[in-house]
Amino acid sequence: MKHYNEIGKIAYEGPGSTDPFSFRYYDAGRVIAGKPMKEHLKFAMSYWHTINAAGTDMFGGDTMDKTFGLDGMARYEKKADFAFELMQKLGVEYYCFHDVDVAPEGKTLAESVENLRRMTDYLLKKQKETGIKLLWGTANMFGDKKFMAGAGTSCSADVFAASAAKVKAALDATIKLGGAGYVFWGGREGYDTLLNTDMGLELDNLALLLTMARDYARAHGFKGDFYIEPKPKEPTKHQYDFDVATCANFLRKYGLMDDFRMNIEANHATLAGHTFQHELRVARVNGIFGSIDANQGDLLLGWDTDQFPTNVYDTTLCMYEVLKAGGFTNGGLNFDAKTRRQSNTLEDILLAYIAGMDAFALGLIKAQALIEDGRIDAFVKERYASYETGLGKEIRAGKVTLEGLSDYALTVKEFSVPSGRQEYLEEVLNTVLFRG
Amino acid sequence: MKHYNEIGKIAYEGPGSTDPFSFRYYDAGRVIAGKPMKEHLKFAMSYWHTINAAGTDMFGGDTMDKTFGLDGMARYEKKADFAFELMQKLGVEYYCFHDVDVAPEGKTLAESVENLRRMTDYLLKKQKETGIKLLWGTANMFGDKKFMAGAGTSCSADVFAASAAKVKAALDATIKLGGAGYVFWGGREGYDTLLNTDMGLELDNLALLLTMARDYARAHGFKGDFYIEPKPKEPTKHQYDFDVATCANFLRKYGLMDDFRMNIEANHATLAGHTFQHELRVARVNGIFGSIDANQGDLLLGWDTDQFPTNVYDTTLCMYEVLKAGGFTNGGLNFDAKTRRQSNTLEDILLAYIAGMDAFALGLIKAQALIEDGRIDAFVKERYASYETGLGKEIRAGKVTLEGLSDYALTVKEFSVPSGRQEYLEEVLNTVLFRG
Amino acid sequence: MKHYNEIGKIAYEGPGSTDPFSFRYYDAGRVIAGKPMKEHLKFAMSYWHTINAAGTDMFGGDTMDKTFGLDGMARYEKKADFAFELMQKLGVEYYCFHDVDVAPEGKTLAESVENLRRMTDYLLKKQKETGIKLLWGTANMFGDKKFMAGAGTSCSADVFAASAAKVKAALDATIKLGGAGYVFWGGREGYDTLLNTDMGLELDNLALLLTMARDYARAHGFKGDFYIEPKPKEPTKHQYDFDVATCANFLRKYGLMDDFRMNIEANHATLAGHTFQHELRVARVNGIFGSIDANQGDLLLGWDTDQFPTNVYDTTLCMYEVLKAGGFTNGGLNFDAKTRRQSNTLEDILLAYIAGMDAFALGLIKAQALIEDGRIDAFVKERYASYETGLGKEIRAGKVTLEGLSDYALTVKEFSVPSGRQEYLEEVLNTVLFRG
Amino acid sequence: MKHYNEIGKIAYEGPGSTDPFSFRYYDAGRVIAGKPMKEHLKFAMSYWHTINAAGTDMFGGDTMDKTFGLDGMARYEKKADFAFELMQKLGVEYYCFHDVDVAPEGKTLAESVENLRRMTDYLLKKQKETGIKLLWGTANMFGDKKFMAGAGTSCSADVFAASAAKVKAALDATIKLGGAGYVFWGGREGYDTLLNTDMGLELDNLALLLTMARDYARAHGFKGDFYIEPKPKEPTKHQYDFDVATCANFLRKYGLMDDFRMNIEANHATLAGHTFQHELRVARVNGIFGSIDANQGDLLLGWDTDQFPTNVYDTTLCMYEVLKAGGFTNGGLNFDAKTRRQSNTLEDILLAYIAGMDAFALGLIKAQALIEDGRIDAFVKERYASYETGLGKEIRAGKVTLEGLSDYALTVKEFSVPSGRQEYLEEVLNTVLFRG
Repeated sequence: MKHYNEIGKIAYEGPGSTDPFSFRYYDAGRVIAGKPMKEHLKFAMSYWHTINAAGTDMFGGDTMDKTFGLDGMARYEKKADFAFELMQKLGVEYYCFHDVDVAPEGKTLAESVENLRRMTDYLLKKQKETGIKLLWGTANMFGDKKFMAGAGTSCSADVFAASAAKVKAALDATIKLGGAGYVFWGGREGYDTLLNTDMGLELDNLALLLTMARDYARAHGFKGDFYIEPKPKEPTKHQYDFDVATCANFLRKYGLMDDFRMNIEANHATLAGHTFQHELRVARVNGIFGSIDANQGDLLLGWDTDQFPTNVYDTTLCMYEVLKAGGFTNGGLNFDAKTRRQSNTLEDILLAYIAGMDAFALGLIKAQALIEDGRIDAFVKERYASYETGLGKEIRAGKVTLEGLSDYALTVKEFSVPSGRQEYLEEVLNTVLFRG
Repeated sequence: MKHYNEIGKIAYEGPGSTDPFSFRYYDAGRVIAGKPMKEHLKFAMSYWHTINAAGTDMFGGDTMDKTFGLDGMARYEKKADFAFELMQKLGVEYYCFHDVDVAPEGKTLAESVENLRRMTDYLLKKQKETGIKLLWGTANMFGDKKFMAGAGTSCSADVFAASAAKVKAALDATIKLGGAGYVFWGGREGYDTLLNTDMGLELDNLALLLTMARDYARAHGFKGDFYIEPKPKEPTKHQYDFDVATCANFLRKYGLMDDFRMNIEANHATLAGHTFQHELRVARVNGIFGSIDANQGDLLLGWDTDQFPTNVYDTTLCMYEVLKAGGFTNGGLNFDAKTRRQSNTLEDILLAYIAGMDAFALGLIKAQALIEDGRIDAFVKERYASYETGLGKEIRAGKVTLEGLSDYALTVKEFSVPSGRQEYLEEVLNTVLFRG
Repeated sequence: MKHYNEIGKIAYEGPGSTDPFSFRYYDAGRVIAGKPMKEHLKFAMSYWHTINAAGTDMFGGDTMDKTFGLDGMARYEKKADFAFELMQKLGVEYYCFHDVDVAPEGKTLAESVENLRRMTDYLLKKQKETGIKLLWGTANMFGDKKFMAGAGTSCSADVFAASAAKVKAALDATIKLGGAGYVFWGGREGYDTLLNTDMGLELDNLALLLTMARDYARAHGFKGDFYIEPKPKEPTKHQYDFDVATCANFLRKYGLMDDFRMNIEANHATLAGHTFQHELRVARVNGIFGSIDANQGDLLLGWDTDQFPTNVYDTTLCMYEVLKAGGFTNGGLNFDAKTRRQSNTLEDILLAYIAGMDAFALGLIKAQALIEDGRIDAFVKERYASYETGLGKEIRAGKVTLEGLSDYALTVKEFSVPSGRQEYLEEVLNTVLFRG
Repeated sequence: MKHYNEIGKIAYEGPGSTDPFSFRYYDAGRVIAGKPMKEHLKFAMSYWHTINAAGTDMFGGDTMDKTFGLDGMARYEKKADFAFELMQKLGVEYYCFHDVDVAPEGKTLAESVENLRRMTDYLLKKQKETGIKLLWGTANMFGDKKFMAGAGTSCSADVFAASAAKVKAALDATIKLGGAGYVFWGGREGYDTLLNTDMGLELDNLALLLTMARDYARAHGFKGDFYIEPKPKEPTKHQYDFDVATCANFLRKYGLMDDFRMNIEANHATLAGHTFQHELRVARVNGIFGSIDANQGDLLLGWDTDQFPTNVYDTTLCMYEVLKAGGFTNGGLNFDAKTRRQSNTLEDILLAYIAGMDAFALGLIKAQALIEDGRIDAFVKERYASYETGLGKEIRAGKVTLEGLSDYALTVKEFSVPSGRQEYLEEVLNTVLFRG
């Protein structure tokens, strides 16, 4: 295999290509349903996994070196150079970051904020040079010791204030860089044991932090979306943002439905006991579909593996939901995925992105083929046909009462329910997926 | 061991008793925190598991005979006789039922409704004779073939109407019997595959059914609570009432928060990835704590085992939440539990209820002891003390802004967060549990 | 859609076919790697799911009627007629059964044994008429009440004897019908609580039953394979045959490795926390690969869903292992799968088998393509290349000592381990799967 | 609460004590069943969690500082001083370590080995001064980058050699320190994807490493036990030492049953889908019970939480198995547990050990009480009584044939199986646990 430095821009070469450093399915300009692939998919690079994560896990240290032999701001400028070069090689046009991903932490919070401000200028320059855009920004409020008991939900009022400071600084950066979104992932917003936890107080405080953030950002011209990223657990035993439905309840309770949407991660969905498609559908039904963290977990493992997405069943059903939702507005597909610990070369980063981008390109192609094929949509329409006329239509219009329906039902001789035909529908799906 | 018929009313004999047919902890009249145990606990018998379930599982047939050698209405009258006698032996003062538990299904829906009406009279007579009361009623809208695709969420409008008829009849029975609650458990309200499902339509319809039921019951004098019983899955792949938070979102979305509360089942909590205590706490924080289905699951098994509750950690933390919520109003502790398939004698029914009632009696005693001990509550109060004065107090009052907090936080030299002390709190819990 | 009776023999029509009642991939006679597809795949019909199961689950009754309006032996003869007709429509050339699937249970064990003997003659006639063969037989030792505490592991010596009688009768039937295998699935061979269990005695007894069965069958001319079918739990809390490795330990301990092999079920693998491919590989490495129960589970559900297999990743990796193992000898692919409860028409049975057979046909095609592509096998060979020369070769030959290796290792300056390249290999897999 | 330095030796003060820094149940010299508690329990300190782990998790950095402001050997000597002082405060008389826990890693393997050799002398001096003993030693063959693809199962022959060198050095240290055991925990001995794995080769190599280690140690006078520590997954997707049964199969296959036993960890048991008691029982039944890693997991979480054990049901059933196995010989109870990330003070280390030691002391007291109570043992004996006379006795003696048993069974009119009485047995357990 070629070395990283010998590899230029990754080109589309078609399904038959055996060049590892080519796309077999992702053809950025190919028009699908009236839009180029790249506009449907809006791929983004996750700064933390791609530029910083180096293979550490709970039982072992780094397997890669991503320090570039440098320290301090110099290291982070070099990282930014590498990041933008990498995105250009891959044809990835968006990125996402936490404050601590792009700038070194200072000795004090004030110093950290200042470092971020300075690096924001550097990133802005890189954006202008390359045309690459910021999909969303966020603040890391889970890594540092002070957040051990949460950020917005910390038992310490000072830490709550520190969280506000971090959010403000990350919002300032996001706004300056023209980011289309701002994400809250509450990795420590939860509890480890109820024996020491005041859940009511913590949720009220969390809502206050989000409300203040919204007010500040709107006052400073931010037009993008706020996202909550649901995850059920890990690192905490229980996270308050368990899944999409739980977040929707929180947003409704605290009056935040108008500004907040969901950033849905495939691996978080499965940790919560749901399919990826389920979480996308629940968001759509609640009107809060927003953006996607594209990765995949291992359903036989109980932690967040953040693998590059390669399962084409999942990418197809994901893109089917995205197409049905009318596509992304401010959101996109952020690869919140890390190369496996044993995939420890720079080439593996390219290979992993290629695998993920091809899997999503194929998912898009197949999702559109599924819609064009029409059999599944027609089946669903037919299955609920009884609600389109007569009694069913009145039910849908809410023009019925319990007694009225009861009177009717007691006259029905036999109830007939159409077959659900799951196996047939799975064969139709396979037919579309595999017919080449 | 004695035979069932030789056993009279189960008496409290204290912790040292080795008579299997005695209580070691449940002493109905013993006053705890100003109320007799039986008023705190409000034990109820589940008709389905206790009077009908006979040991069948997915891989094997009955191991008990609960037909009494009878058919039709005679069988159900005999079952009622047995049920009330059993409750009297146990000193259980409430019961819960589905329509199909207490009356035979007819050849038509109309016939079934009529059978239920007739058996309601019979049950009313038994209630008057014994003083036993109905905790809640419900309609079984999951067992019959016609509900295979759901009841309120069926793809068939006729089945939706049949559901309304069943709810009406079960509400009529509940009202007549003076039931303090009415439960919706949506075993089939969900989906097996999204490939054939219109989730939005299904949820709208479900909300309509609940709204009509509420309106009908209120118009007919029902003052009790409506309950949704969350469960994440089984028999369907996904149930819409996944957990308490999901149900709260549904209730808020459709304007049903005032009339509906939660009927929380221990085993359903764990299937959803939560502790029992968690679900109780979430209900409390959302103001929708209602009633309890007291059982326990096996966390190493992925299905609803509905075991009699015997884990005193769980019953203690449950009763701690109940005491903190101010106790039950219309709700109670329904043993939604079945004797193990191999516990196939009538004596086992008594032994199982004794085990469950003793475990909850002990849980109540220990929960109150925990509160009186005071260390845990004091620890929690101290942990959040920073919110009781100064900046923290202003945060709680919502008198802060993102900028203001940020300005403050940037001046803080070191952030300090108190130890969570989980191990210490667990030792305190053990100390209270085991000090005899 | 056409009705069941209007549908003739299902024909191969190619990937483009939209006729639901046709194969898109299964082309029985197509030669792959020197053998016709049907010889590679050896599809078998599971009598229990296909001919008997009618949609019942733990929360609801039948949704189909498979009684043919008949009782007693007449019903079972009609079922056999239907079964063989169905297999002919599908082109399925093998079947598998439990004693109770094919003959009615009598009032006594003796009567049941006699019923089986009579139905065996009927089945033999059907086999001769159609050329369809028996893949394997087994005895159901889990459904009846008497097996509630196990069969070979029952706490009752009489039940142990009854198990011997059932095994003998089922072996007699299997031998008469020319079955190539005999399966032990120990659904009740395990425990619900260790509080009442003598594990050592139970395992000894189980081994004795298997040993006696082996001796009896060999003495009566049986040349086929005995299979244990691993499953970790359900219906019991713990089954002794947890997974392939656990069964291998049991076979080694009791001296049964020469006669027993594994019947590996996809859904049982995942319930045990393994992939299907893992279990196949472990069996291969231990020299006990035998036969397959082809189905799929839902990894988000904790029970045995026995779905028809449609995931082509899984079928491909399964057939890859089968090809690497040299293909089936006495074993085959038994569809231990049932149509979903809502797929309640006869047409659904055909559609489900078609979906499963196409998925496995595609899996075979793709597995062979993967082998011919060669990239994955070459990668593995290269990854372990250090064991083919020098020190590695000596290690493989066992010609090393701890001291010798230590002396060498202490001189090594830098250890280098090649990248695992997981993402690349997944892209290669996708490339082969989706290139049409 | 008092500060760490103000706290002296933790004393037994009895169940009523509210001094956090006292034992309520662990009374080292109290005689239970003829032996002092401390000889039954043989508590050991885990060096890695207690002396090194500082609160890092996958999403956040340290919350404690355990560097003592020192570097290099000085740091490790100080750590050892702290460790022995801590054990003396707690009255813990054993410890366990990995090579890298007690000595700094050098720049080369040779340097690391030399550092370990030097620190071994230091530890030996501490042992002599305090009387504290080494329960077992081990080598960390999972943390360093070179072990990313395994140690004994690495695809690199050089890494295999490095593993041999590490094992040799750790064995030398263990022997010198008089350790009674040597553990193999194969954290990286497994695979992340079968796509790149030669499972057969890897298992052969692993067996070779263990065999060489055994031969070397025996040749150098080691009389203690070798242990394999089963774990199903994490950090690898699949670990070869999945559970006790899987390890037993491996030991049988490679002829290692005489020298190797199991080091069973509670949290690993549950990750494999088993109870802690189950794994202990399986080890006992296979004759390979050895030592215990005492901790507890959270069954709702899918990773190794390594919590201090405080669930008294679990500790009781564990000690019940230990007592039934005749107690420990070379093994003991090693607290492979870490304080929660938020329990980040030195006092928390004491509180956590106190909680764990009290929970096990209570478990021992209750296990012995359970045996003395006798009801459970008597129940089990009675349940299998049919095997003590007549036919059952012949079965146990192996004096039966399939035909003979069949002939008998066909004459039995009705089969009767005694009730399993699970609920009753759970009540008996509660009775014993909570009667004070």
